[in-house]
Amino acid sequence: MLDIQRLSTTQPDFDQQLQSLTDWDDGATHGVESAVADILAAVRGQGDEALRHYSEKLDGLAVDAVSELEVDAAGCQAALEGLDAADRDALETAASRIRHYHLHQRQSDWEKTEPDGSRLGQQIRPLERVGIYVPGGKAAYPSSVLMNAIPAHVAGVDEIVMVAPAPDGHIAPMVLAAAAVAGVDRLFLLGGAQAVAALAYGTETVPAVDKIVGPGNAYVAEAKRRVFGHVGIDMVAGPSEILIVCDGQTDPEWIAMDLFSQAEHDEDARALLICPEARYLDDVQAAMERLLPEMERSEIIRASLARRGALICVRDLAEAADVANRIAPEHLELSVVEPERLAAAIHHAGAIFLGRYTPEAFGDYCAGPSHVLPTSRTARFASPLGVYDFCKTTSIVQCTAEGAGVLGPIAARLARCEGLTAHARSAEFRFDD
Amino acid sequence: MLDIQRLSTTQPDFDQQLQSLTDWDDGATHGVESAVADILAAVRGQGDEALRHYSEKLDGLAVDAVSELEVDAAGCQAALEGLDAADRDALETAASRIRHYHLHQRQSDWEKTEPDGSRLGQQIRPLERVGIYVPGGKAAYPSSVLMNAIPAHVAGVDEIVMVAPAPDGHIAPMVLAAAAVAGVDRLFLLGGAQAVAALAYGTETVPAVDKIVGPGNAYVAEAKRRVFGHVGIDMVAGPSEILIVCDGQTDPEWIAMDLFSQAEHDEDARALLICPEARYLDDVQAAMERLLPEMERSEIIRASLARRGALICVRDLAEAADVANRIAPEHLELSVVEPERLAAAIHHAGAIFLGRYTPEAFGDYCAGPSHVLPTSRTARFASPLGVYDFCKTTSIVQCTAEGAGVLGPIAARLARCEGLTAHARSAEFRFDD
Repeated sequence: MLDIQRLSTTQPDFDQQLQSLTDWDDGATHGVESAVADILAAVRGQGDEALRHYSEKLDGLAVDAVSELEVDAAGCQAALEGLDAADRDALETAASRIRHYHLHQRQSDWEKTEPDGSRLGQQIRPLERVGIYVPGGKAAYPSSVLMNAIPAHVAGVDEIVMVAPAPDGHIAPMVLAAAAVAGVDRLFLLGGAQAVAALAYGTETVPAVDKIVGPGNAYVAEAKRRVFGHVGIDMVAGPSEILIVCDGQTDPEWIAMDLFSQAEHDEDARALLICPEARYLDDVQAAMERLLPEMERSEIIRASLARRGALICVRDLAEAADVANRIAPEHLELSVVEPERLAAAIHHAGAIFLGRYTPEAFGDYCAGPSHVLPTSRTARFASPLGVYDFCKTTSIVQCTAEGAGVLGPIAARLARCEGLTAHARSAEFRFDD
Repeated sequence: MLDIQRLSTTQPDFDQQLQSLTDWDDGATHGVESAVADILAAVRGQGDEALRHYSEKLDGLAVDAVSELEVDAAGCQAALEGLDAADRDALETAASRIRHYHLHQRQSDWEKTEPDGSRLGQQIRPLERVGIYVPGGKAAYPSSVLMNAIPAHVAGVDEIVMVAPAPDGHIAPMVLAAAAVAGVDRLFLLGGAQAVAALAYGTETVPAVDKIVGPGNAYVAEAKRRVFGHVGIDMVAGPSEILIVCDGQTDPEWIAMDLFSQAEHDEDARALLICPEARYLDDVQAAMERLLPEMERSEIIRASLARRGALICVRDLAEAADVANRIAPEHLELSVVEPERLAAAIHHAGAIFLGRYTPEAFGDYCAGPSHVLPTSRTARFASPLGVYDFCKTTSIVQCTAEGAGVLGPIAARLARCEGLTAHARSAEFRFDD
């Protein structure tokens, strides 16, 4: 028997149930906070020496010098060449699709010239050096290498520095191969808060970067939060989640497997299905019960569905869209007829997968957009990782003497209203009363 | 006698001197950290009750209900109508220019259709509700209202909620007027970490927002850092700064006053001048000594120049550009002949002001771009506040059955490499082997 919560929008306490289902405490515990503060201070103060210490203590990886933790380009290329041909082909095709999608995100400088000859505009430049955190440990995620590094590469970043934990020295060859394919420039076998600290502050061996992106565990998230401001960060990621809206016409096994694909990540992962047909929810539940025993990660799936899964019955698809907007999911599958119509009612989602032939898994690996997406309702304000995360803008202002005659009096007047008379006089020098 | 540091790139310890000049510890002190943690927890848990408590305790503003701290639209409109005509005209002209500039920052959705009919793209939507923190206290900054709220308004944000501290109940009418002009929807006389908490979590009276922008003191900065993830934030602002590169041909009084205009903000403000002519640095220093006694804020200027100002002699303008890139200044004035040529060598700056007729003050008030700019070397990775800060993107993926036949095998292969077999099977359901 599979344990998964059933909800209906007709329940009087639905709002409350939905709230408790989607609540996620994004704060770090005090223990994590203080451990991370210590690690950051140590790496900032003692550099390589502290990195060696934490790598040995936390990753079981003892080296004489941090330089031994670097995998050079030849090492990554060798891993790529050692791949099974079909694996390599899949990796390279995915990379090519991701690259192609992100080319559309590049932005151009613009400027406009006013009638008096003054010029206004903005110029957009890639960041010089970025750090990419690729989680590792038990599982290896070559797809995360592609999804983080390729947008940076397309943006034109000069140097992409990747870190990935290698507990006891183990790292999947496919991760190294992905680094070669994605255009990673340097790779260090470092993980945890110490890797974030090394990227943020630099050490004798690890170069300091301008921005750090990529998901990680609670220590990595807290470390990123703390170095924010000193370097840029992308976001603080929570557990992964899917919301599927189905009209009841998709094969229940397809939907069951889509829910499993989210639930198999870890026990915090959240898989939700919304449908206006209660009977269809029964069908999907039956399909899940049928399919679960044959899944390799059935225990994780079972635990995650019991803790955070739900099958939600709604009155109609319009109400489904409302609920979806309240959840603001990382991944939203619209497994319905005419999905474009329903998509038009969605305001908040990291990525929308439209139609019965578009499972989230396509987006996880190869459709094109980055799979690094805003989680835990942050799609209300945050965007998928993209080329824009690896660029920054500079405002451009250039006045002619005539233009200064237009702007000067306005600036001087407002500056005097604010009591900032040096501002006013600086403006006044540029025009004649 | 005016106290300001002199540096030269020919000094053997120049790099170290520059480093210590530009160092800024962006971390909060432990006292600020724990005070802010307490305030956030109190407001999150007790809502209006805690807000009332902190407003009385910290702002000397005692009310029976938080609703008394709201200034309604009529109140703001009345303030606007009560302005001196020339002040109102300056405010409205500035607003109109800022609005016009930001119209250029709006971005469009895009999509592309693949040969098999599959569709990829991204849709861009405004945030629903944002919070704008406008610092107040002793000084009033109506320009900050415009510079924060207008980009949000241009983005199409549904509701702009502004907070501004009003110690002992005092707020400048010009600030209220600016809120009316900029399209602020709701305004609360709240400041400090408690205002950030109210915007992040919502209370009975203050609505929760999706993102909080705008600069503030150390408590506000730390509060924003802590609520980041729960809501979006723009950046953690440090003290304001200007770097002027001059070829020695601009009237020294103009440059002296431009440096003063930065230094008059507060004692942490940083004003730097770079020039290849040592004699010109003498001329500017003499001009500063001449002008300082007549400045209203001479004591602040004197203190700030002594603490953080510098006149830097370089070998040539190419070296000036190198130094500017290392400083990555918030504001960069290029007071030189052919400023476009020099600008092409600049990689990192919040805003560049080109030519002798473009003082920073124009940008502070009315040129067009927001004056909310990345400080303390964060221009390496961060951008001016803009329309893009008030929008977010959703990735769009829609596959046809034929497209699923292309993506399915790639996704399935990579998923199996990662040991995520539910992902693989979810993909495999969509195509026939």
